[in-house]
Amino acid sequence: MSRKLVLAAAQLGPIQRAEGREVAVARMVALMETAHRRGADVVVFPELALTTFFPRWYEEDLTNADHWYETALPSNATAPLFEAARKFNIGFHLGYAERTPDGRRFNTAVYVHPSGEVVLKYRKIHLPGHSEYDPTRTVQHLEKRYFEVGDLGFPVVRAPIGNAGPVNIGMMICNDRRWPEAWRSLGMQQVELVMLGYNTPSLNMENRGFEAHHLRVFHNHLSIQAGCYQNACFGVGVAKAGTEDGHELFGHSIIVNPSGEIMAQATSWDDELIVAEADLDMCKLGRTTIFDFARHRRPEAYGRILASAGSEAPEEWAPKS
Amino acid sequence: MSRKLVLAAAQLGPIQRAEGREVAVARMVALMETAHRRGADVVVFPELALTTFFPRWYEEDLTNADHWYETALPSNATAPLFEAARKFNIGFHLGYAERTPDGRRFNTAVYVHPSGEVVLKYRKIHLPGHSEYDPTRTVQHLEKRYFEVGDLGFPVVRAPIGNAGPVNIGMMICNDRRWPEAWRSLGMQQVELVMLGYNTPSLNMENRGFEAHHLRVFHNHLSIQAGCYQNACFGVGVAKAGTEDGHELFGHSIIVNPSGEIMAQATSWDDELIVAEADLDMCKLGRTTIFDFARHRRPEAYGRILASAGSEAPEEWAPKS
Repeated sequence: MSRKLVLAAAQLGPIQRAEGREVAVARMVALMETAHRRGADVVVFPELALTTFFPRWYEEDLTNADHWYETALPSNATAPLFEAARKFNIGFHLGYAERTPDGRRFNTAVYVHPSGEVVLKYRKIHLPGHSEYDPTRTVQHLEKRYFEVGDLGFPVVRAPIGNAGPVNIGMMICNDRRWPEAWRSLGMQQVELVMLGYNTPSLNMENRGFEAHHLRVFHNHLSIQAGCYQNACFGVGVAKAGTEDGHELFGHSIIVNPSGEIMAQATSWDDELIVAEADLDMCKLGRTTIFDFARHRRPEAYGRILASAGSEAPEEWAPKS
Repeated sequence: MSRKLVLAAAQLGPIQRAEGREVAVARMVALMETAHRRGADVVVFPELALTTFFPRWYEEDLTNADHWYETALPSNATAPLFEAARKFNIGFHLGYAERTPDGRRFNTAVYVHPSGEVVLKYRKIHLPGHSEYDPTRTVQHLEKRYFEVGDLGFPVVRAPIGNAGPVNIGMMICNDRRWPEAWRSLGMQQVELVMLGYNTPSLNMENRGFEAHHLRVFHNHLSIQAGCYQNACFGVGVAKAGTEDGHELFGHSIIVNPSGEIMAQATSWDDELIVAEADLDMCKLGRTTIFDFARHRRPEAYGRILASAGSEAPEEWAPKS
């Protein structure tokens, strides 16, 4: 059996604060239709795909922010995505803000089977930014305020996509991609396809000392390419891009193969669909040779990775003479 | 105080089997003299820098291979390196095959202070290849035969280099660079400078199925650049390069900054010295913001990284309907 899949990354242009979910959803349905015309088996939408990236605004009382969160999927507003999935026989990945019945808040992503059933849910673990208003920043990045740390670990599940038979599917969200621990946690479960959405500001560190802004897209790609290579998997990294409520988010969504090569790249800062054919058998080479974990990994030497969150200063060398 | 250092990577061209250590050492001393003229504070030599890459040949009885190993540093053959270090006031990193007094064998690297004192020793942990003769390979890669797994962990030490004051120094060797666990183990100790040497065949997988040979240098760079970015450190990756006893090793030695950028790159397959000025204060930015480990890492979600060496297949999804 061929293990070939057509992967689609559905980059979204900006979604303004004044726009409702129905605006975003209509654009996403149009992208799903394009994906169908390109023969895609799965389409990946960005993180927090239904609204503007609201963690850039401080909110004293989070109950005033409830309108940013979804309490059910599908809802009236998101039902058209599920209908399009069924109609086009396409699975889709969606990032959204989740509020649970008991009032917990997560930055969440789901992979939805064409039937409409949720196959896998992930809640973002590496929340960037801060939880309190930071007067040194001209733009806030309050993910640690708006969301709890995800409580589902880094799950991988084996589920059918298209005609490729079962595929080992994992997810991460935005900042997770910079952390090799996230990639490895998926790699330890033989992940073959990592779906990840992001909302990444082009400028993030104003008034906070030097940062090489021109390298931010490079860092994004470097992390995804290294993660795919070192874990022998495909990655679909999808941006919300462009100037959203006056704040620029970079694009450059990519589809990456297990060699770490970029197979497709978005070049606009707007709604844009890119596709690539992935031969899942490519995951085998790394996994059975240079990255044959059982043969080459040495967990007994990795203790520091779990021993603490923070780093420790090394000992000072004292010359003998 | 300025924390600027001039780093030098001293790539070596091939060392043929017929050549003695004195040939290699003379070339290395010449490179140290060049490093001195370029104002270098530290010079990094490759893995197994004193001899040909002997793990490409099978040897039934390892006692017949004792001549490849060093039993003392300095020895008569290596003393000129230590003399040059003192004369030029340059610290140096040297990779070599180590045989201990009790007969253990390691793929080892040391960082030597200009005074000649060994500051830090590391023994390679991620040994690639295999331990028995593999008839499917046209070229053997018998590191698992010639060496034990390193028993010193991933040490980092804070020691003075040049006029930059104390620097957090760590090392890895060749294949280690592909493993994010190795980088992170150093990063957890606030490493600022990673020295690493390699001997990497341009063709490694003959008769073992498809490998994208043209990507091997890319994979090398990708791993080093990601490791430096994700751990906010400088990296000096140094090759033994060229056609050695009929077998091609790739070059492309690089010096990388904490943004993951390549600051200098060797472009020959021969002895070649490249230098770059490193401002160690650059390590602070990542460490205090996006990669502030204490604030952002989530070890409670990383359990799988230590739980086993090998990966585990994920559960199969069963549709509800």
